[in-house]
Amino acid sequence: MELKDVQSLYDPREISIDKVGIKGIRYPVSVLDKRRGVQHTVAEINMYVDLPREFKGTHMSRFIEILNEFREEIYIKNIPFILDRMREKLSAKVAHLEISFPYFLKKEAPVTQAPSLMEYQCFISGAKSEEELDIVLGVRVPVMTVCPCSQAISEIGAHNQRGEVTLKVRFKRFVWLEELIEIVEASASSPVYPLLKRPDEKYVTEWAHQRPRFVEDVVREVGRRLLDHPDIIWFAVSAENLESIHAHNAYAYLERWKD
Amino acid sequence: MELKDVQSLYDPREISIDKVGIKGIRYPVSVLDKRRGVQHTVAEINMYVDLPREFKGTHMSRFIEILNEFREEIYIKNIPFILDRMREKLSAKVAHLEISFPYFLKKEAPVTQAPSLMEYQCFISGAKSEEELDIVLGVRVPVMTVCPCSQAISEIGAHNQRGEVTLKVRFKRFVWLEELIEIVEASASSPVYPLLKRPDEKYVTEWAHQRPRFVEDVVREVGRRLLDHPDIIWFAVSAENLESIHAHNAYAYLERWKD
Amino acid sequence: MELKDVQSLYDPREISIDKVGIKGIRYPVSVLDKRRGVQHTVAEINMYVDLPREFKGTHMSRFIEILNEFREEIYIKNIPFILDRMREKLSAKVAHLEISFPYFLKKEAPVTQAPSLMEYQCFISGAKSEEELDIVLGVRVPVMTVCPCSQAISEIGAHNQRGEVTLKVRFKRFVWLEELIEIVEASASSPVYPLLKRPDEKYVTEWAHQRPRFVEDVVREVGRRLLDHPDIIWFAVSAENLESIHAHNAYAYLERWKD
Amino acid sequence: MELKDVQSLYDPREISIDKVGIKGIRYPVSVLDKRRGVQHTVAEINMYVDLPREFKGTHMSRFIEILNEFREEIYIKNIPFILDRMREKLSAKVAHLEISFPYFLKKEAPVTQAPSLMEYQCFISGAKSEEELDIVLGVRVPVMTVCPCSQAISEIGAHNQRGEVTLKVRFKRFVWLEELIEIVEASASSPVYPLLKRPDEKYVTEWAHQRPRFVEDVVREVGRRLLDHPDIIWFAVSAENLESIHAHNAYAYLERWKD
Repeated sequence: MELKDVQSLYDPREISIDKVGIKGIRYPVSVLDKRRGVQHTVAEINMYVDLPREFKGTHMSRFIEILNEFREEIYIKNIPFILDRMREKLSAKVAHLEISFPYFLKKEAPVTQAPSLMEYQCFISGAKSEEELDIVLGVRVPVMTVCPCSQAISEIGAHNQRGEVTLKVRFKRFVWLEELIEIVEASASSPVYPLLKRPDEKYVTEWAHQRPRFVEDVVREVGRRLLDHPDIIWFAVSAENLESIHAHNAYAYLERWKD
Repeated sequence: MELKDVQSLYDPREISIDKVGIKGIRYPVSVLDKRRGVQHTVAEINMYVDLPREFKGTHMSRFIEILNEFREEIYIKNIPFILDRMREKLSAKVAHLEISFPYFLKKEAPVTQAPSLMEYQCFISGAKSEEELDIVLGVRVPVMTVCPCSQAISEIGAHNQRGEVTLKVRFKRFVWLEELIEIVEASASSPVYPLLKRPDEKYVTEWAHQRPRFVEDVVREVGRRLLDHPDIIWFAVSAENLESIHAHNAYAYLERWKD
Repeated sequence: MELKDVQSLYDPREISIDKVGIKGIRYPVSVLDKRRGVQHTVAEINMYVDLPREFKGTHMSRFIEILNEFREEIYIKNIPFILDRMREKLSAKVAHLEISFPYFLKKEAPVTQAPSLMEYQCFISGAKSEEELDIVLGVRVPVMTVCPCSQAISEIGAHNQRGEVTLKVRFKRFVWLEELIEIVEASASSPVYPLLKRPDEKYVTEWAHQRPRFVEDVVREVGRRLLDHPDIIWFAVSAENLESIHAHNAYAYLERWKD
Repeated sequence: MELKDVQSLYDPREISIDKVGIKGIRYPVSVLDKRRGVQHTVAEINMYVDLPREFKGTHMSRFIEILNEFREEIYIKNIPFILDRMREKLSAKVAHLEISFPYFLKKEAPVTQAPSLMEYQCFISGAKSEEELDIVLGVRVPVMTVCPCSQAISEIGAHNQRGEVTLKVRFKRFVWLEELIEIVEASASSPVYPLLKRPDEKYVTEWAHQRPRFVEDVVREVGRRLLDHPDIIWFAVSAENLESIHAHNAYAYLERWKD
């Protein structure tokens, strides 16, 4: 029996669509890990293509088929090939891929060197047409920030809090997620750690209080490092403090094209 | 034309169901406010009844009709009437109602007395059968906590953070949401505020550092006050710290029936 | 006692920041309602300004003070005044304001005309500098979509599902949220309703099955109407189906500047 | 230098605490897979112990150390050992462990047998004291449901939607997650699939329309199977429909101790 291909029908409205595809599918993927080679994790994935004005719809199942083809090899270096496969298989001019996943790094406590695993949410997004390839790499890094104002005006202590820094970059030459994470952690009052014994807690508290930072300072510190980085051509960094003295957040955002 | 009433059909599986109803409907409601009389807000509501073994289904649209009947009068004092109406209109033995909503209180900064509005997420849930009525009142209160361990071992500062305390109570006599909120705020290192000018920030920082509290301290401080409270017969309190030195949270939970 | 103004210190890094401010504050606001005049609701608000390179930080408490000034009058028509007040009070060149809130409209069931209240999440964002004002108005509208492919190939039924359509517009002359909502609801297989009695459920089911729509159809139907709309100068519309045959969503996105 | 052990101080309030520990930590774990042996995934973990009245606090870092000890062996069969380790290392009477993680199964399309990976969110929680061990196993399964009422009263089609079924069980003898998932999928109008080609979509649509199910039917169908299951001693099942004709959900909940 022949089943009608409704999607391939002519569409009389003649409006092309920027992005059509699937959103929010979860999938096991492998990510290249600077230290250990390959890391297994679970990604949330969006896949879109453009739709020319003459067609009624996209064949959504083909996105899943492409995921299945690349399953164990969804590395950053393969993104252009996945995008090309999407363009080919869906007869599209532009393909878009967005992947986010938890990524774990071994982290040692600063004094006792007790090891543990720290999670960072990471992002990769790619768009590709015949002429152009655009890749953005991103990390979300939890940090500690001590408030410079509170410290300057108080006789005891200073309010501090967990902050979340989101950094996205475009690059000339490949940059490791590990390097982006290091840049962010060096830009806050202190990194955070899963495992801190008492001597570590003392160290982190004191270290952070010697480096008080507003959200403004955090994005500038990240910016300063990236403006100097030879492989980065664009970045966008936001810092959001879960303020300990408020129920709302403090926020700063900095974006730059270098050239 | 007569439309078939599928829900009223006999169900041969003979399994009664504990709760059937609607979940996650958003609705504008009015809440009695200790200071100003009535406060307009937006609630998320769940409504369930039991379903006897002999019926195939519940008539879901009747829940919405009941909401519409009580619309401007969804006060705590009306909960028993709403529950009775549910039991009657849906021919049920037991009715359940869960309401959560943001609630705003005027809050003055501790030194400058600059006023602002502070949001607290509140909960009311009720269950009623022929013989029994059970009402639980709850608040979620953001607070500030300073770590006693970090303070004791560090030479400068102490890590502190935003925490969230959730308190639920059963009572003999009506208790205001305002009173529950006050009890929680007094049990932490400090309340948090939407608006703090510099002298206020200095005051809050110093006040909090003079009252360091673990999550364990916070639930015990709340517990101590409620064990002494003549109108409370049960409580459950949890404290969750958005730890500034970790990406995970510290948590404590305390529950007691008094008698 | 004089408290040091750390924020006003000179910053030697000389990096200006695009946006600095507060994020995620919840606040009771009033919104102009086409039918009833004024509607009380609860908003989530972000407020940002740019920060010149020479200053270390922004005075975050001033954002809250501005919210307090405008509290009962956070109407769309007041957005430019709020933005100007932000620029003035924070000595900034550009101010940004983002507001999202649940908005309720009376909705009648299509046959029985049983009335109920339907919630729509709405958005307003504004940015203003000396030279430019940019306002975007948005709505998120839940709809029903019946799959044209499933209907064409199946001998019985067709899969259908709840979808969420997000529409944002820029305009020459003020457009009511109500009008945007109507445009979206007319573009799907059917609107959804809080309250449907049996004759209404029959009507909605049949109505929707006579108007099968892919996500691609939904964004094109919205697009077609807005391309013809004299007051709209830009729009971005996304349709996301909570597919009933998959655990992931189908998605389409269409954006246009007109002329 | 000796650092003060604040947590071990005597607490004069003399209130024991039900649960103290860490919440929301993310961690890579391995899960036993019925078909393939071992599956790598990422879990969110909560770990609590009770705190006797005489101690001021718990040593939170020890939870992380225990996680690290068991890292590659967080299997269901190891839960009692992890709980004992928690009791020992934290000098506690009762230990609690809650783990949730995405779990992937190969799923073939019903006609073309095209393979793909389907994600199920799974839960394991355990509590252990000297005398008692309590383990609960759970799965959340997306399904498709066709409304029996809409089908009976409409001349064309029937509204249907994605539903989410959450099943938790206590057991006498070990039960595979795969078996729980199969029971749920057989109890709905149809399973959902990541990948369906046109003949599959036709099949699923028709299959589901021949098995219309309310949320009430779904929990009863699951209940019927579990009441007959020799290894299950308790279950709680909820079904929640993302109704395609409403913006709110339909919900049913059924819980039973067998004996």
